[in-house]
Amino acid sequence: MPNTAPSEIAENWLARFSAALAESPRKAVEEFFLEDCYWRDLLAFTWNIKTMEGRDAVIAMLEATLASASPTEWHVSGEPSVDGDTIEAWFTFETGVARCEGVARLRGGRCWTMFTAIRDLKAFPEKKGATRPLGIRHKADPDRETWSETKRRWQAELGTSRQPDCLVIGGGQGGIALGARLKQLDVPTLIVEQNERAGDSWRRRYRSLVLHDPVWYDHLPYIPFPDHWPVFTPKDKMGDWLEMYVKVMELDYWTSTRCVSAFYEAGKGFWTVELDRGGERVEVKPRQLVFATGAYGPPRAVELPGMESFAGEILHSSRYSDGSRFRGKDCVVIGAASSAHDVAVDLWEAGANVTMIQRSPTTVVRSDTLMEVGFETYSERAVERGMTVDKADTLTASMPFALVPAGQKVLYDLIRARDRDFYRRLSESGFLLDFGHDETGLLMKAYRTGSGYYIDVGACDLIMDGKIRVRSGQGISFLTPTGVVMEDGEEIRADAVIACIGYYSMHETVAGIVSRETADRIGPCWGLGSGTRGDPGPWQGELRNMWKPTAQEALWFHGGNLALSRYYSKFVALQIKARVAGINTPVYGAPSG
Amino acid sequence: MPNTAPSEIAENWLARFSAALAESPRKAVEEFFLEDCYWRDLLAFTWNIKTMEGRDAVIAMLEATLASASPTEWHVSGEPSVDGDTIEAWFTFETGVARCEGVARLRGGRCWTMFTAIRDLKAFPEKKGATRPLGIRHKADPDRETWSETKRRWQAELGTSRQPDCLVIGGGQGGIALGARLKQLDVPTLIVEQNERAGDSWRRRYRSLVLHDPVWYDHLPYIPFPDHWPVFTPKDKMGDWLEMYVKVMELDYWTSTRCVSAFYEAGKGFWTVELDRGGERVEVKPRQLVFATGAYGPPRAVELPGMESFAGEILHSSRYSDGSRFRGKDCVVIGAASSAHDVAVDLWEAGANVTMIQRSPTTVVRSDTLMEVGFETYSERAVERGMTVDKADTLTASMPFALVPAGQKVLYDLIRARDRDFYRRLSESGFLLDFGHDETGLLMKAYRTGSGYYIDVGACDLIMDGKIRVRSGQGISFLTPTGVVMEDGEEIRADAVIACIGYYSMHETVAGIVSRETADRIGPCWGLGSGTRGDPGPWQGELRNMWKPTAQEALWFHGGNLALSRYYSKFVALQIKARVAGINTPVYGAPSG
Repeated sequence: MPNTAPSEIAENWLARFSAALAESPRKAVEEFFLEDCYWRDLLAFTWNIKTMEGRDAVIAMLEATLASASPTEWHVSGEPSVDGDTIEAWFTFETGVARCEGVARLRGGRCWTMFTAIRDLKAFPEKKGATRPLGIRHKADPDRETWSETKRRWQAELGTSRQPDCLVIGGGQGGIALGARLKQLDVPTLIVEQNERAGDSWRRRYRSLVLHDPVWYDHLPYIPFPDHWPVFTPKDKMGDWLEMYVKVMELDYWTSTRCVSAFYEAGKGFWTVELDRGGERVEVKPRQLVFATGAYGPPRAVELPGMESFAGEILHSSRYSDGSRFRGKDCVVIGAASSAHDVAVDLWEAGANVTMIQRSPTTVVRSDTLMEVGFETYSERAVERGMTVDKADTLTASMPFALVPAGQKVLYDLIRARDRDFYRRLSESGFLLDFGHDETGLLMKAYRTGSGYYIDVGACDLIMDGKIRVRSGQGISFLTPTGVVMEDGEEIRADAVIACIGYYSMHETVAGIVSRETADRIGPCWGLGSGTRGDPGPWQGELRNMWKPTAQEALWFHGGNLALSRYYSKFVALQIKARVAGINTPVYGAPSG
Repeated sequence: MPNTAPSEIAENWLARFSAALAESPRKAVEEFFLEDCYWRDLLAFTWNIKTMEGRDAVIAMLEATLASASPTEWHVSGEPSVDGDTIEAWFTFETGVARCEGVARLRGGRCWTMFTAIRDLKAFPEKKGATRPLGIRHKADPDRETWSETKRRWQAELGTSRQPDCLVIGGGQGGIALGARLKQLDVPTLIVEQNERAGDSWRRRYRSLVLHDPVWYDHLPYIPFPDHWPVFTPKDKMGDWLEMYVKVMELDYWTSTRCVSAFYEAGKGFWTVELDRGGERVEVKPRQLVFATGAYGPPRAVELPGMESFAGEILHSSRYSDGSRFRGKDCVVIGAASSAHDVAVDLWEAGANVTMIQRSPTTVVRSDTLMEVGFETYSERAVERGMTVDKADTLTASMPFALVPAGQKVLYDLIRARDRDFYRRLSESGFLLDFGHDETGLLMKAYRTGSGYYIDVGACDLIMDGKIRVRSGQGISFLTPTGVVMEDGEEIRADAVIACIGYYSMHETVAGIVSRETADRIGPCWGLGSGTRGDPGPWQGELRNMWKPTAQEALWFHGGNLALSRYYSKFVALQIKARVAGINTPVYGAPSG
């Protein structure tokens, strides 16, 4: 259709597809979708987070969900954009219970990728803008309860005389973002955080830590960072922002509180959760339970032959915070991903002698480079073009995971060419580089295993200059009282060993709190099933168990970096709201359990 | 020019006027301005806040300032709007030292009102968006000072080993907004607040207080309220927001600190200020001193014949916070403006018997009515049309004070017709109503005297229902041990008298801290010189002494409601920044002193 405007093509396509869909999903898909097609749905049809790949999968999903979803009111919104032979059209539609949005990419008049997501539950739209609360009864009232009196009463009651509908374990960025969404959806929610203050999950990390992702990527929902906020947020500033956010969003947030155990009786429809609140045992009975304990589970145990004989200190990176006591000391850092690099720099800055032990190759990207070519959607340039965080998130989510590697491969070919000298010098210093199994770089490693990469904010210069020594390609054979012996026999003196060896999957946290049986039934979290190292198949097409129904009823996982926490908190909150409000939520492709 | 587009008319006018101006101000004004014309300037030409009324005043101003301002680069921005025979055009221009903006209203091809204001100092633009700080040096650095270390060091040094360029007395909304502006302009500033916590100036007020102005009018600079914020903010929520704001904006803010005295030696160029910081005496030497102690000065002293014999409690409204101890008591409220109504309602809600003594008529507007017809520029409807807070503030500021009454008169004619029944019933209850000397209503009273009005959020119903009794048109003759005796001889039993009798002018605060001589030299703050009751002439055309140079070098007043604090804090900050940076700031029409 060379002479037809993209908007006309998109409107035509949407009108004809939606009409055909009402008659027969099979016919609609066969006529209006390419054979090589994808449909990613966030709750709208599936009440799940699921990508259907290929016509058969799309047809099966539609045949199973169409009657209950009953989509109507399909309308193209805004002006479609064109990239080569692809037209990208944004649209809105409604299901029986929700207002939804979508993004369709068309090629040759047929759909290549389809994305659909709930935006609002019709019965429970968030109150904002024109529907914001009034905040006052315009009337003298002898029974007036003021805002602060209501708040105090509510805080005293919640978790004692009044049970929260939802308990969120973990009050870092994930729990906080989710808590804010649930608050705006009027779901009584209690967030429990083991640290003393909101934001401590950032404050307690190593001294020099500054966010590796830029500000445009890191906004929380509802209150964006102001325009003067630095590109890279220092950890303590982030901690203060989270603490402020908890207060301003009026979250019910218990500090110094640890979740001891949780037990679900399906027949009763609620969890019995035992909390340790500053030494006091408190039992709460939420209907929904969310693990927001971090993108990962507990720290991996440090297990090294001879470690009991080692005279110095051995600690996991999660417990490393201040390098000053290592001044003049010989320190061995095990690992060569983000934490290992940051800890090594922190130690070097504190005046320690640092050796990094790199067991396997690492994907490294210079921060400046990533900023220039990798964060196009989340940047000041994008903002100036009218991009909003919401749009950027939807755009990112609209691309099925199966298609992300191809784009990333192109990006990393560009990055490698651009920083050829940097990579050559880094390799020459003995550092083992890779760009992932299929040369797709950092983002795919993040999705597949959440490990094995570093955004260079300073460590690489130290490595290339020999200020941080790297021993690579082999592991530690055993520890002696005064150091480590490598597999090749070299002995490295060490006063301290910092094990930057990562974390178990989040489902290990479930094993500790609920039960091993439940954890194993749920299975691991994160990873796409790509069949690459650390991410065994089968192919999932989505991140395992994240933000969607798990094999355990009323148990959810929420986590990820700030951007993922921001976006997916919305969908976790919508799923929980729908359940506590009694909305029918038939899950398509639910995990068996 | 019936067939010429408004944009063309505006562009033509601006091009020809600015060209003519460069040759001769007199010729330019005579050719391009109406005889009945106004030019309001915020710093751009005058380094003052000044309105020139009529051609002669405009010519005189331009002849005095043109050489140093040297304006260039006049460009119409956006699409001019048309209202009847008036074209409103927004434009930008530059002076030698600043980037500026303006609004011109043209009638019949000539300028009726001109507004010019500095937007940014060229040498010191605020760092935001694309120029925001990076927040990290991308490099390992053994001398690294982290964000929190820098902050701690800075806090320890400021006011002790390092002198602030600016000291702001008063850490309410005014001091906080100004402190934020100065922070973004890199002016080391110390804010001192007598309360224990930021926000206490709101928290400590009476229990039921909720802001009378709606959220769209109340935003602070840099961090707007989120979209779900209630229309009317409860006082404690406002307090918490201010406390958060101080922290997030990283203001240097000393709580529990009172300013004892301040002394300026012109030759030295700095103030010697004695502070009481939680009982400790601290001397600081700022170059600039700002009084941001409220829209008003100290509370007016309560002076009533026989008050020493009164057995009950007498307190000024500023000290009234909780009505609960007045349950079942007879309370007399003196005054009938905002505080008096709010206190009366608070007392009635607490179960007191309340009599309000209205000495003179009050302007009353129903809150709902004001929201619907009075806040058009600051409303969700405006936001939906693309109005921003910045635009709304500029639009409001662009109208010279001399022209505001005419518009307000029209508005209040509308309001009085609309709420005829309400006003009739209120009058019938014995309450004395007025709409100001010239029937222009609440806003003009606010500008002229800052007193004598009430936005009804509940008290009027109580008055009309006889639940709050009103004695009006006469004052108190004297107090007895058990009550008050009115001028007509009626005795009213009273266990407590709450005097809602207002405040002295801000310059009384100066008398207490600097000297009576300095205060008298400066003269009163606020008021336009309208010649109406409480606002004696001569006509000023601007609010006296507010936000602009005073008769005392390096002494400034900042205050007003949230909207005025937000907007004018920018201009106070720019004036202070220019002075500490050594920019030449010749003040046109400076007060003699």
